[in-house]
Amino acid sequence: MNILKKDSNQNIQDKKVIDNLRGLAIDIIDNAKSGHPGIALGAAPIIYTLYAYHLNFSLDNDKWFDRDRFVLSAGHGSALLYAILYMAGFSISLDDLKMFRKINSITPGHPEYLVTPGVDITTGPLGQGLASSVGLAIGEEYLSNYFGKKIINHYTYVLCGDGDLMEGISYEACSIASKLALNKLIVLYDSNDVTLDGELSRSSSENMRMRFESINWNYLLVNDGEDVQEINEAINKAKNSDKPTLIEIKTTIGKFSKNQGTSKVHGSPLSEDDVLAIKNKLNLREAPFAISNDAVMTFRETIDSRCNNLYDNWLNNINELSIDKKNELDSLINYISSVKVKDIYYEIPEDNREATRVTSGKILNSIADNYPFIIGGSADVSNSTYAVLNNYPSFTANDKEGRNINYGIREHAMGAISNGLALMGLTPFASTFLSFSDYLKPSIRLSALMNLPVIYIFTHDSITVGEDGPTHQPIEQLVMLRSIPNLDVYRPSDANEVIGTYKSILETRHPSCIILGRNKVDINSNTKINEVKKGAYILEKEHGKLEAVLISCGEEMEIAHKVQKILTERGVAIRLVSMPSIEVFNSQDTSYQEQVIPKGIDTFVIELSSSYSWYQFAKDKNHLFTIDTFGKSGNKDDLLKYFDFDYIDIANKIENLLK
Amino acid sequence: MNILKKDSNQNIQDKKVIDNLRGLAIDIIDNAKSGHPGIALGAAPIIYTLYAYHLNFSLDNDKWFDRDRFVLSAGHGSALLYAILYMAGFSISLDDLKMFRKINSITPGHPEYLVTPGVDITTGPLGQGLASSVGLAIGEEYLSNYFGKKIINHYTYVLCGDGDLMEGISYEACSIASKLALNKLIVLYDSNDVTLDGELSRSSSENMRMRFESINWNYLLVNDGEDVQEINEAINKAKNSDKPTLIEIKTTIGKFSKNQGTSKVHGSPLSEDDVLAIKNKLNLREAPFAISNDAVMTFRETIDSRCNNLYDNWLNNINELSIDKKNELDSLINYISSVKVKDIYYEIPEDNREATRVTSGKILNSIADNYPFIIGGSADVSNSTYAVLNNYPSFTANDKEGRNINYGIREHAMGAISNGLALMGLTPFASTFLSFSDYLKPSIRLSALMNLPVIYIFTHDSITVGEDGPTHQPIEQLVMLRSIPNLDVYRPSDANEVIGTYKSILETRHPSCIILGRNKVDINSNTKINEVKKGAYILEKEHGKLEAVLISCGEEMEIAHKVQKILTERGVAIRLVSMPSIEVFNSQDTSYQEQVIPKGIDTFVIELSSSYSWYQFAKDKNHLFTIDTFGKSGNKDDLLKYFDFDYIDIANKIENLLK
Repeated sequence: MNILKKDSNQNIQDKKVIDNLRGLAIDIIDNAKSGHPGIALGAAPIIYTLYAYHLNFSLDNDKWFDRDRFVLSAGHGSALLYAILYMAGFSISLDDLKMFRKINSITPGHPEYLVTPGVDITTGPLGQGLASSVGLAIGEEYLSNYFGKKIINHYTYVLCGDGDLMEGISYEACSIASKLALNKLIVLYDSNDVTLDGELSRSSSENMRMRFESINWNYLLVNDGEDVQEINEAINKAKNSDKPTLIEIKTTIGKFSKNQGTSKVHGSPLSEDDVLAIKNKLNLREAPFAISNDAVMTFRETIDSRCNNLYDNWLNNINELSIDKKNELDSLINYISSVKVKDIYYEIPEDNREATRVTSGKILNSIADNYPFIIGGSADVSNSTYAVLNNYPSFTANDKEGRNINYGIREHAMGAISNGLALMGLTPFASTFLSFSDYLKPSIRLSALMNLPVIYIFTHDSITVGEDGPTHQPIEQLVMLRSIPNLDVYRPSDANEVIGTYKSILETRHPSCIILGRNKVDINSNTKINEVKKGAYILEKEHGKLEAVLISCGEEMEIAHKVQKILTERGVAIRLVSMPSIEVFNSQDTSYQEQVIPKGIDTFVIELSSSYSWYQFAKDKNHLFTIDTFGKSGNKDDLLKYFDFDYIDIANKIENLLK
Repeated sequence: MNILKKDSNQNIQDKKVIDNLRGLAIDIIDNAKSGHPGIALGAAPIIYTLYAYHLNFSLDNDKWFDRDRFVLSAGHGSALLYAILYMAGFSISLDDLKMFRKINSITPGHPEYLVTPGVDITTGPLGQGLASSVGLAIGEEYLSNYFGKKIINHYTYVLCGDGDLMEGISYEACSIASKLALNKLIVLYDSNDVTLDGELSRSSSENMRMRFESINWNYLLVNDGEDVQEINEAINKAKNSDKPTLIEIKTTIGKFSKNQGTSKVHGSPLSEDDVLAIKNKLNLREAPFAISNDAVMTFRETIDSRCNNLYDNWLNNINELSIDKKNELDSLINYISSVKVKDIYYEIPEDNREATRVTSGKILNSIADNYPFIIGGSADVSNSTYAVLNNYPSFTANDKEGRNINYGIREHAMGAISNGLALMGLTPFASTFLSFSDYLKPSIRLSALMNLPVIYIFTHDSITVGEDGPTHQPIEQLVMLRSIPNLDVYRPSDANEVIGTYKSILETRHPSCIILGRNKVDINSNTKINEVKKGAYILEKEHGKLEAVLISCGEEMEIAHKVQKILTERGVAIRLVSMPSIEVFNSQDTSYQEQVIPKGIDTFVIELSSSYSWYQFAKDKNHLFTIDTFGKSGNKDDLLKYFDFDYIDIANKIENLLK
């Protein structure tokens, strides 16, 4: 089906569609007075070849689960993508194209997941799409193994540019891709030798063949990016490779523009003259958006001849599945977790003390044992973060049943790959030390933006990691994460709240971070599993008429408990509030919020992290027992003393402030 | 001087020093009950060979400016580093070694710049040291060209492990290093095939020779990491290469431990038995810290024969410099900027309107024209961020006078390289869009931790970037940066405040970020250059008895101005405060702070970024006109409307809240 006829009629037809695609893309950009014509003109033959002769999808159901995935890693090529989606027959109208980059349109500046039919992933920050495609490809293999090839069997295609390949994340992710032999991952590299600031050679001269062969990829070169035949043959070869493939396709940025081959055509609309000249060169009608119906019809017929029955055949295949598997597939596609809290197995340790990272490991395992779609790993710190599924092997080139991904020391790729896994319906977990959440911030942001149910597990969550010192002691990371829109950050104070955290995450399916401590803490008989989903709750009531509220979370709850106890003994009516999640608490209705933290009452906070998280609850900085300087290397107790976290001191200070 | 005698006596002597080094390092770790013996035992011969036969330094002045630099990128090898520094004769005592990882010692858990004599850079987060070494090497070449080879002429050595080379930042930085032909950069790769979670082959199988040759490095292999001769010869070859060199040295992690070659020896102290067994194997005295005086003396003599006169010779060379150059060298070494504000040239544009990113470009250029030690670049967005020195060429393999570094689309390496440049006394600038500050957060944190005068220039600072959409619209990035300890974040509202920002940064020499807007704004006749250094000041006085304070910064000052004007017209006594820097304002004395923002007065804030920055000034969230959701693709005006930033609406809301 993918064999291209080599006669010249075919070539002429291809060229006509491609040229119309080019014309439409630059019209979209010029109409919006904003956008990136360079890639649209240069990479049109690539994306055309892919959509015409390879990419499997269904116009009847653009979310068909077994469609081939397409990742426009060079997200600034959005106009080209929308143009081809329109021409291919997705539910995008000419009017939509005329609304390109306008507010609330379905054609935003960069591709956005769930906004545009046919857009599989949000891209824009360079490198992210390419790295996430590795997650898509892992997901495909895991699920293909789980449900069988009749249900899951598709390719993941990426279109990327030099920018994607310069970003560190791309090296990390590509190294993982070949280690896992993800041979159904095919990267089309729009190699045009030009970046925003000028010629690529100003900043880079890598031998791409060697680079990719050094990490065991299949490397193919297409010398003429205008030659559909050549591109097509390369893709066919890639499909038959036992390795992931990079096809370097030499193109001319802004092809046919008077400024072709230069950075001038990268990121601004072309002049009206230039557009007209291009259209004349390509025999296109001059009027904006006046593309050839013939070209559209030809293109749609080509697609139809390949894709027509794919979805129906797949539905038939599903009918051959067992009821159980059918239900599982359904839960996967609709992101429904079948885990109930009663399924979670947890035995309280004898001494009633446990580090929350240890509890987390147990709960994660218990959940995973009841739910086959949890898969993940850590950036080479599984022994410390306990984010490892003990009853399952590693996912490797030879074991697609494996559910532990050995990311190596590649935090950033881990984040982006998790996004790809989540886009395949899986529930990924990703773990490292909280301090190193910095390394994957760009990917966490995209989890939140795409609203993907990724579970980030960050341990070693304060200066109490101790001896490793300030590079390993998070200070500002908590507010960095809490301030990301649409991300729930949980910092449970003990085992009960860890269970409650997982429960809340599985219920909401929100992008989430679980922040965990290194050291053993008491498991409190008053902490409540079911209150965590409210973000905060009253942990210890005040004795008498409320004078003060004390908020805490994480390991520091042990200090807060002592402070509240002392002050209560001294006759201060102080309430202890456990607040595992600020964001979740802030999303409760006001009456609940005021019930827990009444207005006008002096409110204090103890947390070993930046004050920025907590000003919202306190009258002034004196009410915050937080830390705004870097930590130090030393043991936990020495550090708590050095940074003024002695509970008696804190109690005294609070008492004085209440006077 | 670097030729090693090949007789067997020499070999015996080398081995004795190395074995004592091993014994000392594991004693340090066991005494601290914390640390990483694996690298200490495995890489001892490498670090020994370097210090004994190559690394040029001065014990009389451990900060001697032309010393060779040593970067322990695998920062967890700190015990090994401290042990060799002690043995080499740096000002570190046995007592200091016994205080390893204890609070306020000079031997912290990971190496810290300015804390330990002989430690050139803070390391720990993997990949950062290696990437910063590229900055050290660029700095060396730039300054060598500037002052001549008699003043600056040294090597930069790195010891790194697999973790460093897996991090994306290492690929980015290494690609830049060879593009710039930094042949005096020599990386010693402790290749032991083991990572924290187990065998390296679980997560990685890169062909290192191909990887480094694909980016035009000189690759050398040392098969036996115990063989001082072989290591030594490789370093000699590297010194004569016209490319940067990676020497892969095959070692055994935890060599001589009963668990050698496994991840068990990576990160925990060895058992007492194991330590004794190792000492017996190596013929070392059993008592902790009982190292051989002979070994120490031999080692120090070897070093002395090479390094003895280096510093004195250099002082003589300095005397041959012109007075001007001598002064410049002095200013470089002591981080003194010779730029006076009167040197800053700035002409107000005719229409009195200018985007702050444009002003910034002008001021940066004006400063650079007066100060030769400013050097930097952007991550391929110079045309948009204006962070380019117009009167100077690019720094390239063939032009060491160049002051623009073409980083390519490699934000993370740009950050770490900037740290390296600053460690060489230079004042680096580094630029990209604010949204992508995420990509270099780990390096910014290290600038702050090392207190380096790096100037980060982040433009396109809010949703008003417009059409590019939410991936390009920063929301939480400002609080991410502001919450980093010891980092000053400035967000000037117009050209005057841009000038004031640069002035303040040059005076304080603090690690700083300048946050700039995309769009033109009015240049206000009331904004004050000299008030910026106070962080905030009264921009427009209230009319009558103060009822409210309105704080703003950045482009939003235009909105705030209108709000204040309307409310004043309506008879509300509202004061407008310009706050270019929260951190700087918070470091002023309380009386100044209360003078600007009196206690008990309703305070409002307008900023198109996360509320988390601003709760500290406001009574409650109603007083914040901020944004806590992701942005949207659309034009600036549509976005301001959509996100409720109409100035009349805001004025109305404030008026209501004051009732």
